[in-house]
Amino acid sequence: MTGSKKLGKQTYVFSRPLPILSTASVVGRKEGEGPLGEYFDEVITDPLFGEKSWEKAESKMVREAVDIALGKINASYGDLDFMFGGDLLNQLIASNFAARDLPVPFYGLFGACSTFTAALSLAGIALDGDFADKVLVTSSSHYQTAERQFRFPTELGVQRKPTAQWTVTGAGAAIIGSSGSGACLTCATVGRVVDMGITDANDMGSAMAPAATETIKQHFEDTGRTPDYYDVIATGDLGCLGKALAEEMLSELGYDMSKNYTDCGVIIFTPDQDVHAGGSGCGCSATVFAGYFYSSLLNGDYHKLLLVSTGALLSPTSTQQGESIPCIAHAVAIEKV
Amino acid sequence: MTGSKKLGKQTYVFSRPLPILSTASVVGRKEGEGPLGEYFDEVITDPLFGEKSWEKAESKMVREAVDIALGKINASYGDLDFMFGGDLLNQLIASNFAARDLPVPFYGLFGACSTFTAALSLAGIALDGDFADKVLVTSSSHYQTAERQFRFPTELGVQRKPTAQWTVTGAGAAIIGSSGSGACLTCATVGRVVDMGITDANDMGSAMAPAATETIKQHFEDTGRTPDYYDVIATGDLGCLGKALAEEMLSELGYDMSKNYTDCGVIIFTPDQDVHAGGSGCGCSATVFAGYFYSSLLNGDYHKLLLVSTGALLSPTSTQQGESIPCIAHAVAIEKV
Repeated sequence: MTGSKKLGKQTYVFSRPLPILSTASVVGRKEGEGPLGEYFDEVITDPLFGEKSWEKAESKMVREAVDIALGKINASYGDLDFMFGGDLLNQLIASNFAARDLPVPFYGLFGACSTFTAALSLAGIALDGDFADKVLVTSSSHYQTAERQFRFPTELGVQRKPTAQWTVTGAGAAIIGSSGSGACLTCATVGRVVDMGITDANDMGSAMAPAATETIKQHFEDTGRTPDYYDVIATGDLGCLGKALAEEMLSELGYDMSKNYTDCGVIIFTPDQDVHAGGSGCGCSATVFAGYFYSSLLNGDYHKLLLVSTGALLSPTSTQQGESIPCIAHAVAIEKV
Repeated sequence: MTGSKKLGKQTYVFSRPLPILSTASVVGRKEGEGPLGEYFDEVITDPLFGEKSWEKAESKMVREAVDIALGKINASYGDLDFMFGGDLLNQLIASNFAARDLPVPFYGLFGACSTFTAALSLAGIALDGDFADKVLVTSSSHYQTAERQFRFPTELGVQRKPTAQWTVTGAGAAIIGSSGSGACLTCATVGRVVDMGITDANDMGSAMAPAATETIKQHFEDTGRTPDYYDVIATGDLGCLGKALAEEMLSELGYDMSKNYTDCGVIIFTPDQDVHAGGSGCGCSATVFAGYFYSSLLNGDYHKLLLVSTGALLSPTSTQQGESIPCIAHAVAIEKV
């Protein structure tokens, strides 16, 4: 096509830098007690957040993050042209019920834990095409809502496998603008679904590592960049097992990730917080970005970040039917310009 | 913003007509026996479609629709720049597992039965912004997968309420191009979440009618058009009860819908097919569009269609927690140019 913004097979380059005008992160107590605690805007110590159910609490966390993000730039709901949001819950009830209170054209996305960068990339596409001036992106998860939906009711006290990850309780929001400077979206590599036949739903990090590897490799191939282009490359929630696997797979492909590669699920908790392989959930990369990485870009600690949220697209039904775990990863380059 | 393609509050006008290059529809036996049977590309008489579960069958129907749509224009997977797809199932397993076999950058959407027009509008945004040359859109539902997930296992033989609708078994696909003539996307009005406090999960049509009304009203306000601009205005799956309600609500707002308003859920079955209030499901507006409406646009029976897919964003969990039903509707104008 003429004048295409597509580069290579899966990368889409924005015709101008699209500034992230504001972000907000609302997290649970455990996340607040973790190493990134100081970067989050609000720590909710009550997992019910004053609501009658964990699902309603998660939805309220989304609204809270939206209000904080808007407040930081003195904007209101009426300034938002689109909302792209998603979560892990069946029928996206955390996002849908949050959107109910917002008079904003809304798209619900399901990409499991890849949702945050899926939403960022779509925000970029809508802004770059002059369909919007400000776009809201949200993503959330909640330990208790995820456990009882995907695994067991927490009241059952089922012992967690050593490979298991801990779903982050948190909501992240970002507001992206149509042009400007600061920490900006510059391009996105949109993932395809990758399934290597892994069936262990207690080791999501290893299941998602090939999808992360595939998207990162494609990003480098499409852009001609190498890992050292970025100050930091952060996958979403591979945890310590998946991160080691992705690093090894990328190394075999000739990409040295040893210097600047991290994973949001690894850095949001410390090993002594008893989270086994690390954090996970839609809220993981969303809050780590909205809190820690966005601050680090603004204060100059980092200038170029490749954020690669990773999602495992299984359901309890597909697992019961003997299916393996399809996964996906979307990469977004965020650069100080 | 300068050069904005946003018109009014919620309408987005494409800078050039975006042609629908091909569509395909794959449906179940009941849909094949209905009044639109002749328009569908393939009728699957076995609800398992040769698979071991209904969920796998639904996923296979999506792939089948994609293959048929590609075959009609002699295109292959490699020609597709994006896939936007969704379904009703928890974690979108019908779409995700279909996308696993396609080497195409993929976005999963959850908008319940509004998914097809959500996907069409996003395809338009990506194409108009020169991010893509060909975009695949899919949407599916399956009577048996929906019943056991949202209501009761069909084996239980629970009597259906008179207000209930019948989930369409079917998958629709469309491939949209970046420029050309024919039946083209020209603009979209993207819905916001509307919740009028309705709690009866056995009367989705009435729950969704206010969202449909809101989006149609906004489309007219934003564009300055009146109902007679279109040859036909079709909501997704309000069924006969919801359609009557939407028509009444729009009439009270001053819009005469009596001449050219229909609903995909009303026309896909006949009353003697024992479907109570009509058809529903993500596959309803997708297959009715891909089959009937697209043919009617190509052969000149219609020149201007406003397709308004409608979604009820509830989950069994939200219903159990006493929540009302948030709904959404997205309108896409498809015109012969």
